[in-house]
Amino acid sequence: MTDPSLPHMPLDNFRRHGHELIDWIADYLETIEDRPITPAVEPGDIRAKIPSTAPATGEDMGSILADLDDVVMPGITHWQHPGWFAYFPASSSPASILGEIASAGLAVQGMLWSTSPAVTEVESAVMDWLVDLLGLPPTWRTDTGPGGGVIQMSASDCTHTALVVARDRAVARGASRDDVVAYSSAHAHFSLEKGSWVAGYQHIRAVPVDSTFAMDPAALRAAIEADIAAGLTPAFVCSAVGTTGTTAVDPVRSIGEISREFDLWHHIDAAYAGSAMVCPEMRHHQDGLELVDSYTFNPHKWLLTNFDCSVFFVADRAQLIGTLSIASPLMSNTASDDGAVVDYRNWHVPLGRRFRALKLWFVLRSYGADGLEAYIRQHLGWATEFTGKVESHARLELVAPTTFALISFRHAGGDEATAALADTINASGWAHITVSEADGRPFVRVSIGSTWTQKRHVDALWDLITNALEEQS
Amino acid sequence: MTDPSLPHMPLDNFRRHGHELIDWIADYLETIEDRPITPAVEPGDIRAKIPSTAPATGEDMGSILADLDDVVMPGITHWQHPGWFAYFPASSSPASILGEIASAGLAVQGMLWSTSPAVTEVESAVMDWLVDLLGLPPTWRTDTGPGGGVIQMSASDCTHTALVVARDRAVARGASRDDVVAYSSAHAHFSLEKGSWVAGYQHIRAVPVDSTFAMDPAALRAAIEADIAAGLTPAFVCSAVGTTGTTAVDPVRSIGEISREFDLWHHIDAAYAGSAMVCPEMRHHQDGLELVDSYTFNPHKWLLTNFDCSVFFVADRAQLIGTLSIASPLMSNTASDDGAVVDYRNWHVPLGRRFRALKLWFVLRSYGADGLEAYIRQHLGWATEFTGKVESHARLELVAPTTFALISFRHAGGDEATAALADTINASGWAHITVSEADGRPFVRVSIGSTWTQKRHVDALWDLITNALEEQS
Repeated sequence: MTDPSLPHMPLDNFRRHGHELIDWIADYLETIEDRPITPAVEPGDIRAKIPSTAPATGEDMGSILADLDDVVMPGITHWQHPGWFAYFPASSSPASILGEIASAGLAVQGMLWSTSPAVTEVESAVMDWLVDLLGLPPTWRTDTGPGGGVIQMSASDCTHTALVVARDRAVARGASRDDVVAYSSAHAHFSLEKGSWVAGYQHIRAVPVDSTFAMDPAALRAAIEADIAAGLTPAFVCSAVGTTGTTAVDPVRSIGEISREFDLWHHIDAAYAGSAMVCPEMRHHQDGLELVDSYTFNPHKWLLTNFDCSVFFVADRAQLIGTLSIASPLMSNTASDDGAVVDYRNWHVPLGRRFRALKLWFVLRSYGADGLEAYIRQHLGWATEFTGKVESHARLELVAPTTFALISFRHAGGDEATAALADTINASGWAHITVSEADGRPFVRVSIGSTWTQKRHVDALWDLITNALEEQS
Repeated sequence: MTDPSLPHMPLDNFRRHGHELIDWIADYLETIEDRPITPAVEPGDIRAKIPSTAPATGEDMGSILADLDDVVMPGITHWQHPGWFAYFPASSSPASILGEIASAGLAVQGMLWSTSPAVTEVESAVMDWLVDLLGLPPTWRTDTGPGGGVIQMSASDCTHTALVVARDRAVARGASRDDVVAYSSAHAHFSLEKGSWVAGYQHIRAVPVDSTFAMDPAALRAAIEADIAAGLTPAFVCSAVGTTGTTAVDPVRSIGEISREFDLWHHIDAAYAGSAMVCPEMRHHQDGLELVDSYTFNPHKWLLTNFDCSVFFVADRAQLIGTLSIASPLMSNTASDDGAVVDYRNWHVPLGRRFRALKLWFVLRSYGADGLEAYIRQHLGWATEFTGKVESHARLELVAPTTFALISFRHAGGDEATAALADTINASGWAHITVSEADGRPFVRVSIGSTWTQKRHVDALWDLITNALEEQS
């Protein structure tokens, strides 16, 4: 029983509102297709519905929850809509939502093993499961190898962490912080540039790409040699396995060999495409992982797990922990001091951590390895079929090969026609795509992989596109 | 209706399991006091209950949820137990849990205003509410001032962000990255040291403290002058308002004046104590906020909001955004390109962001300003009373003044007696405290402020302590 002297909502009310909210979520997911996928609001419209100061006295939870419909929903872009083909998906699934709920209810802090051993041990177990599921080097398992994985918030955080370790590695060998250099392809995600700036790199090289937008290893070598000749210290190189723009795949093995020759930290950004590695036939795209120091991918993009759940693997956890460990008397405890346990606080920048592994554990168990493989393979198949249709349409041209489940194409009639086509799709109210640029020209990205997307939605998108092309002509 | 061709749990099952999970959480919170507060497990015990690889085929959700009791709970340290007096609290409340649930169900990405306007606008509104609730400078409101607030994961992240902006500000004025210097008190949280290392600072000064463990401004000035004389560039100083060890309060105004004289970025770490500022009588501890560039506090510590919810305010958002903005064609959209909206992706390191403002909005509305004030003031009162008992007990001595709701004391009989007392408390099974160190000697921290703690628990802790002291004698 809740003590009446406490100011909190009685737990019986929590039960009632919790049940209502579960039903509200289920109703939402069942009817999401009936809603316009993007909201019709102007800047400030939602804010205008919210008082400018907090209420002086507490409000009834029923009226607060009613504002989910009245205030929040009019300003929601429905990432879980089956017509979501924009950016990359924001994964979610019923199993994952249940995991989030359990984590919120427990409300424990997993900063140290000792502050809730289950938080750390479930996470280590699940990270090790992923090593096998994705065909990563077995030495990256925490239980048997020198490597290991940890959940962070986003690929931006993981990449930033790798950049910090790489910088300190170079500085420890005598480099000035002003002279360290980071390399990635000219098509790498802007988080590479941002992470490099944040980590203090002054020299950030965008290495030229080939016709598939993959990094040219010869150009990488030339850039490294030029920087060395200029007295700088190459410290970090990122191979993108699936760039954000077009899912281009950098040559991991060639870049890895160069990283070893010149002693650079070699990081893999597989934020989106990592999930595809549950399909063995995809793994040739990451051939050369034994020449990799760190690797990130986001189960929250394409593996049915709610944000935030970005996984960061390192081949040698000692280097990571060595950079990020700071002693503190308040953090001292027998298990940590004996070195008997993993303390994930030493694997990333933040100290506190919630029980994020729970949702991933729920997802991997609920779908099983075979289920995840079938789920991803279905998307890959739909994307292949869609690509074939684009290729055979006289007014469309592919911008890049379809390697995973993103199709990148433009109107053969020029940039204005491409922009008009994109506008028509997004004006449909039920399908949403993003426009990006390659070689200075816009193109349409169709990203297949949202949780609730079925084949009929992909087919309907194609019909929408062909109808729009008919009307444009 | 869920389409049977999708591999997901049918939504009817989600409803059923969701309801079960809500009841499981309510049952847990109702019975938490009956559980041992810390688990009786050795390293590896939880892991041993988990298979070493993921299941090949999907498992029934019922059996997965059963493992919450069978696998997880035996390894949980119960941070929500009313006998939790360790570290600082990990806040949670029924209203906050409901907010987390709604956020998980919507599963939207708030990286840009345009990717879900409500995520950004609710967050801006709630940040502005906090400015008034905490008595922060009105110019820190996003709607009317040049400042603004944003939710990040942890105070470590917020402080790291401030360190990065400070570093780049110094570098922009001609400093070498090798020469920038960061200052904080010798009693500051280790996240200051860690954040400084991560941001690439080679020179990190722990400024001496006075007898209350507050930074000595004269020592700060001397350190800055010595570094300038040595050719270095002082760039950043942190004032702690409530250190982690003893909740010491650095003199914000004096440090602010020095920061202005020598052109340093002045950051406030009020991770724990910021929540106390809902009580106007506490605000003199942060006098001088007009001389502050950034400020962080954690509603997830003491304001009834689930982790992660750390708030970062800046006095001038332009400097923050200038450092952290990177253009990207994929992120381009009319509202952003026109500068008409806040895009929080440019306010921190990660790109993606979940709808964290929802839980804080629920909490502030559910309790109201008066309710929060009364809640905090009650803890402050209990701490004052407890402090009086410590002061009048012959065998105990205070280590530091009780400024908020943390009481720091040791056994007058020496360090071994202090350690024995701490062990006795933690062996009780229902009360949990942390030991830290000051001046190289251990002390017991009693942190009052857990959501479900009532006066009777604080009284029982005192009885436990006095009984232990009797038995020790």
